[in-house]
Amino acid sequence: MQRIAMLGGGFIGRFYAESLHGQRSRDRVVAIYARREETAKKFADDYGCSVWSTDMEEVIAHPDVDMVCIALPNNLHEPAVQLCAKHKKNVVCTKPLGRNADEALRMVQVVEEAGIFAGYLEDLCYTPKFLKAMESVKNGALGRILWAKSRETHPGPHSNWFWDKEQAGGGCMLDLGCHCVEIARNFIGKDVRPVEVMCWAATQVKPIDAEDHAIALVKYENGAIGQFEVSWTFRGGMDLRDEVMGTEGTIWINNFLRTGFEMFTTGKGADYVAEKAESNTGWLFPVGDEVNDLGYNHMFTDMFFAAEEGREAAETFYDGYVVNAILDAAYKSAETKQWEPVNLPVWRGKEGLSQEQTLTDYDEQHYLIKEEVTHDGRHKVILKEKASGKIVERDLV
Amino acid sequence: MQRIAMLGGGFIGRFYAESLHGQRSRDRVVAIYARREETAKKFADDYGCSVWSTDMEEVIAHPDVDMVCIALPNNLHEPAVQLCAKHKKNVVCTKPLGRNADEALRMVQVVEEAGIFAGYLEDLCYTPKFLKAMESVKNGALGRILWAKSRETHPGPHSNWFWDKEQAGGGCMLDLGCHCVEIARNFIGKDVRPVEVMCWAATQVKPIDAEDHAIALVKYENGAIGQFEVSWTFRGGMDLRDEVMGTEGTIWINNFLRTGFEMFTTGKGADYVAEKAESNTGWLFPVGDEVNDLGYNHMFTDMFFAAEEGREAAETFYDGYVVNAILDAAYKSAETKQWEPVNLPVWRGKEGLSQEQTLTDYDEQHYLIKEEVTHDGRHKVILKEKASGKIVERDLV
Amino acid sequence: MQRIAMLGGGFIGRFYAESLHGQRSRDRVVAIYARREETAKKFADDYGCSVWSTDMEEVIAHPDVDMVCIALPNNLHEPAVQLCAKHKKNVVCTKPLGRNADEALRMVQVVEEAGIFAGYLEDLCYTPKFLKAMESVKNGALGRILWAKSRETHPGPHSNWFWDKEQAGGGCMLDLGCHCVEIARNFIGKDVRPVEVMCWAATQVKPIDAEDHAIALVKYENGAIGQFEVSWTFRGGMDLRDEVMGTEGTIWINNFLRTGFEMFTTGKGADYVAEKAESNTGWLFPVGDEVNDLGYNHMFTDMFFAAEEGREAAETFYDGYVVNAILDAAYKSAETKQWEPVNLPVWRGKEGLSQEQTLTDYDEQHYLIKEEVTHDGRHKVILKEKASGKIVERDLV
Amino acid sequence: MQRIAMLGGGFIGRFYAESLHGQRSRDRVVAIYARREETAKKFADDYGCSVWSTDMEEVIAHPDVDMVCIALPNNLHEPAVQLCAKHKKNVVCTKPLGRNADEALRMVQVVEEAGIFAGYLEDLCYTPKFLKAMESVKNGALGRILWAKSRETHPGPHSNWFWDKEQAGGGCMLDLGCHCVEIARNFIGKDVRPVEVMCWAATQVKPIDAEDHAIALVKYENGAIGQFEVSWTFRGGMDLRDEVMGTEGTIWINNFLRTGFEMFTTGKGADYVAEKAESNTGWLFPVGDEVNDLGYNHMFTDMFFAAEEGREAAETFYDGYVVNAILDAAYKSAETKQWEPVNLPVWRGKEGLSQEQTLTDYDEQHYLIKEEVTHDGRHKVILKEKASGKIVERDLV
Repeated sequence: MQRIAMLGGGFIGRFYAESLHGQRSRDRVVAIYARREETAKKFADDYGCSVWSTDMEEVIAHPDVDMVCIALPNNLHEPAVQLCAKHKKNVVCTKPLGRNADEALRMVQVVEEAGIFAGYLEDLCYTPKFLKAMESVKNGALGRILWAKSRETHPGPHSNWFWDKEQAGGGCMLDLGCHCVEIARNFIGKDVRPVEVMCWAATQVKPIDAEDHAIALVKYENGAIGQFEVSWTFRGGMDLRDEVMGTEGTIWINNFLRTGFEMFTTGKGADYVAEKAESNTGWLFPVGDEVNDLGYNHMFTDMFFAAEEGREAAETFYDGYVVNAILDAAYKSAETKQWEPVNLPVWRGKEGLSQEQTLTDYDEQHYLIKEEVTHDGRHKVILKEKASGKIVERDLV
Repeated sequence: MQRIAMLGGGFIGRFYAESLHGQRSRDRVVAIYARREETAKKFADDYGCSVWSTDMEEVIAHPDVDMVCIALPNNLHEPAVQLCAKHKKNVVCTKPLGRNADEALRMVQVVEEAGIFAGYLEDLCYTPKFLKAMESVKNGALGRILWAKSRETHPGPHSNWFWDKEQAGGGCMLDLGCHCVEIARNFIGKDVRPVEVMCWAATQVKPIDAEDHAIALVKYENGAIGQFEVSWTFRGGMDLRDEVMGTEGTIWINNFLRTGFEMFTTGKGADYVAEKAESNTGWLFPVGDEVNDLGYNHMFTDMFFAAEEGREAAETFYDGYVVNAILDAAYKSAETKQWEPVNLPVWRGKEGLSQEQTLTDYDEQHYLIKEEVTHDGRHKVILKEKASGKIVERDLV
Repeated sequence: MQRIAMLGGGFIGRFYAESLHGQRSRDRVVAIYARREETAKKFADDYGCSVWSTDMEEVIAHPDVDMVCIALPNNLHEPAVQLCAKHKKNVVCTKPLGRNADEALRMVQVVEEAGIFAGYLEDLCYTPKFLKAMESVKNGALGRILWAKSRETHPGPHSNWFWDKEQAGGGCMLDLGCHCVEIARNFIGKDVRPVEVMCWAATQVKPIDAEDHAIALVKYENGAIGQFEVSWTFRGGMDLRDEVMGTEGTIWINNFLRTGFEMFTTGKGADYVAEKAESNTGWLFPVGDEVNDLGYNHMFTDMFFAAEEGREAAETFYDGYVVNAILDAAYKSAETKQWEPVNLPVWRGKEGLSQEQTLTDYDEQHYLIKEEVTHDGRHKVILKEKASGKIVERDLV
Repeated sequence: MQRIAMLGGGFIGRFYAESLHGQRSRDRVVAIYARREETAKKFADDYGCSVWSTDMEEVIAHPDVDMVCIALPNNLHEPAVQLCAKHKKNVVCTKPLGRNADEALRMVQVVEEAGIFAGYLEDLCYTPKFLKAMESVKNGALGRILWAKSRETHPGPHSNWFWDKEQAGGGCMLDLGCHCVEIARNFIGKDVRPVEVMCWAATQVKPIDAEDHAIALVKYENGAIGQFEVSWTFRGGMDLRDEVMGTEGTIWINNFLRTGFEMFTTGKGADYVAEKAESNTGWLFPVGDEVNDLGYNHMFTDMFFAAEEGREAAETFYDGYVVNAILDAAYKSAETKQWEPVNLPVWRGKEGLSQEQTLTDYDEQHYLIKEEVTHDGRHKVILKEKASGKIVERDLV
């Protein structure tokens, strides 16, 4: 059983609490810290916490607390983690880990020095569909992974601090791109080094300093490509899709707007549909079980069993730091308009990979380009002559 | 915490155990009864049960057991329930409750006399999508419910007893129709009396005595119609869909084959895809989290909290008995080719409902049939003259 | 080239004209008859007809007319066909052919006696998806057809005569069921005799005499089952889906609401979306090319080439008559609550079919019920002993 | 009526002929040129051409020919166009127009000097869904367009010349990217200047000199972004999707793999499913009417009416040249790893556009960032103070 202190009583803190107390969970949120007293009190009431306070250290240090869950604005992650290290409390921290890789790396170092458990709350790497897809990828059902794209776009976050570049550290790219980067990194292989990033970002619609739309490519050492598309100006709800291409297969995941649940209503009895839905009449696409389908349940299950078993969670502070480093390169690229290298002072994966050979022998003289049965029943191969490089076609009988 | 005895170590017993031990559950399966010793032993090993036996009563009576979970062939439900009543152990029983309403009613009576908790494991009335849809229906988003259809078809069950009419009590209609009937009943209203049933059933493909395909209509006292379509000869996997029509809206739920998870694979690294999938190459449609998406998690959560809080679960033995009564009428109808009345010696819902009036006043002289804006921009109404019954059209300006 | 007289200038007449004059067509609508002069004039203007009149016989008899296209209320089909026969003009008639089989059979007989070409405008048996599906069914990709379901539901027709039982001959069942019946009949085999019908029909919402919701099963001589679901009270647009089950496969067709075209709009620049759409804001599902996707193009192409080549079209007056006969049985069944025989005084298909044997030999002693590889890798068969009827399971190595 | 000479009797030439002779078309392919005599003869036989030859000029110059349709490898487009200009024959040319913008611009100039009709056969800008989507975009249903993405990926082309960089001029980017670029350009506005391009391209799988996978961003003068994703190594069939984001809405189009037509088959009676399908068993996704759904019908209809009416087609040689110029920049960018300017020596659109202002006044002191109703019913706005730039939240009552 975990006795949890929640830091932050806003949208995401409450979402976490719903997941933590959901189903037949053995865990309890026992303490709540919020910046505003009324938020802390309401949260304590709603979720039955015996401890509430506007003093963060008091909550973290409380003897009833085993595990600290950070659900605060991005600029408060590092101070909170420092306090957890000081008081030797296990900690799980919401995404992104830092506002940049420097912050994130300091957090990695302080928790490792303190010897505490530190989990990175990257929920979208724990959605049921993602976990199942990862199994197939690991089993080789897709062959060698060539490209992994993740898209998260919606009409913008609910809390005001997101829109403030100082507190948030960035715009939609930091907020949403951190998910997408880690999803692609998982599919391509966490031990494959991300090498460089090309990014476009712009403020197309909102009156803010940070970007409200961004697209980037992340090149990995083995030649695979990660891609993300993020926006705070998308219309239609929350679009949450992943796509993976491998030499042997394809995966398409839709986590939100098209999950096999469709409703039309003239609007009588209108009510809450789903996170970031834009309407409650006409055709609607609710999600059955948001906390599960967004990965919260499987995430906390992994985190807490990991803490109890003395092992690492699937998503660690180190992962959060790698994600921040990739996003740092993306922000730099959006400014310089260059491919920017990913700067990783600490790297624990493979070194020196190169792209796989693309030459498949057909026979001694030829490489195979394609074998197919045509429209009209011909069985043919398209070949490349090794010596001349000439492309030839040959019918098989 | 519930300490559970599982009766039955087959496909469904294992599926239940996966759900019970999943996530951060506080509950444990502590005892297993199976008809074959090797099954009991293997189950005990796999799920860490301290008690295993081929003597059902011994397991039920064991002092470590709080709650008995019946996952046995249909003909063994009643004897198992009798033993639970005898030993005053709370019980949850897989679907269908009985092979017919007589058996089911006796089970209702014996658990009520014994004063034990008795939950009906109708998992498909606990899928996340179903629960969310029910909320919308209860809030009135669909208006008055006119029709509720549920379809479950697949290529046939895995265990041999299903194919034996004596043990199973019927074919695909009892096996799958029990889900569909209860789904429709929930949407239409559990307190609305099912009045009569028209059913077609046939053995179209399999060399068995029971039906392998059936379709039925269930008429409710308020004029609403329930419909089910079930088959053990469907090709393509497990088709699990619900559709509801109301005066103000529509709901379409796809629980299995089209849930936003799509995979193509040439077959390298092929593995288990999902329950009743027919292939592991080409385009596949896995489910992210089967035990959750099929309702097991939410079902056991409701059952155990209900038992602990001294309240009824959402699905009770009484519900199981009503379902059996409807299916009894369906079986009879398939033979007599008549609409057959639903025989409910015990009925605890509303009495004397009638179909709602369909006349909507437009003005003193007319009823409104339809108001619309046409293709070419006319705003018109179609009306029925109250006096003459004549249909007239009128342009609105 | 066909020089066409259109009878009827309403919704469907205009839809037909759009198709006839669409693309690079060689055909022209040269004449228009409408009951109201202003309708005839407007139509003539819009589509460039040189002849317009409120005298039907004048239009049919006009020397510029080769082909008459009947797009009139149901009660006027027979008189129009009689005039075509009298003037020996080829004729194509919208669906349903008659208000009942008596009318339809008289139309069959009069056109055959007159020796004119007579095509039945069953557009939904000409949609591109349907035609492609029929090819697969004919090639055996689905094996033996067990069940064919067609569903057409929407919020009700646009013209007032539909709502008048005398002119229309019935409600949604005649209007929409005629499509569904013919679709299922095609999949099952047009030469297989429909034997009996069980139907439920009700007026659940609209203040009309005819039914606004109906469901029926049609039993064919070879044991296959046709099913239709029709309604004028569906909310959400026009739902147009077919499903076919065979021993070797499945086909699902969605002709309208889910065709791979999805749009969200806040409502700025709102415009016509698609036939029977209920809204022009929020999530919308337009159709790319309605006249093509609803089958009109392929239908007229077949009709006119058939007329020019002296062959029958794929859908003839005889087909229209069989459809009417099935619907007559459905109406009767809805009243008597019995399975009602399909009365076919003229039948030109196969006689004396029976349901196929379901026994598949496994070896001399057993029938095969199912062969499968289980979850945990066992390869097993479920068999039925021929002598005892016992169900047994056997592992294959 | 158009009397057409087809240049090229391969895959695409035959596809064109199917469309040209389809439905009730008034047009005929009367002449065929192919490089190999047997191809020319077979084509002439199959489509009833009276003229066939392996001498291109002879066919173009033939007096029976009104219109020349170029369906040849990319390196032969320019010589064929030169001959059409010389003989003053109207011409339509398959995509891409040239192998690069230099070739394309010369083609534009020669046809304009000759005064002949010249249409660019960009079929994917004529699909029914695209045309319908363009209508909505033009009507403003999506507001200001922010981003338009088009994706075409499949397992590689059928003819061997595609794989030869000299004949083809490039790899999948030229072959498929030309579609995607023009689709995005239409949505964003053809008169908006494409400014610069960032592209990643690689040869990940095939043993060829050209790229088999590429992704690019195209920046337009008004700040809108076009995106394309193309590959010859995708597994699962032909993925053909467009997505558009505007300030007021979203459009998602799926032209091929998910169009509401789904089939499962065990493989009995297996046959041709659709262009570039990879399998004919399991779950398959055929297209109802390929020539229509891929845009061929609407394309030729527009082309020929344009030629007959003396107007330009919707897609002209000038458009083909702009597309080539964008792709030239993409190829250069893939090498230099820089954003490369689009070089347009001839430009006929708007000049001097700039990105729209993103500041929306809320009141005198504030800009509006977001207005929303939260989860728990609060109606709030998030604002930015004009003076300080501070983000504030305010509840509305």
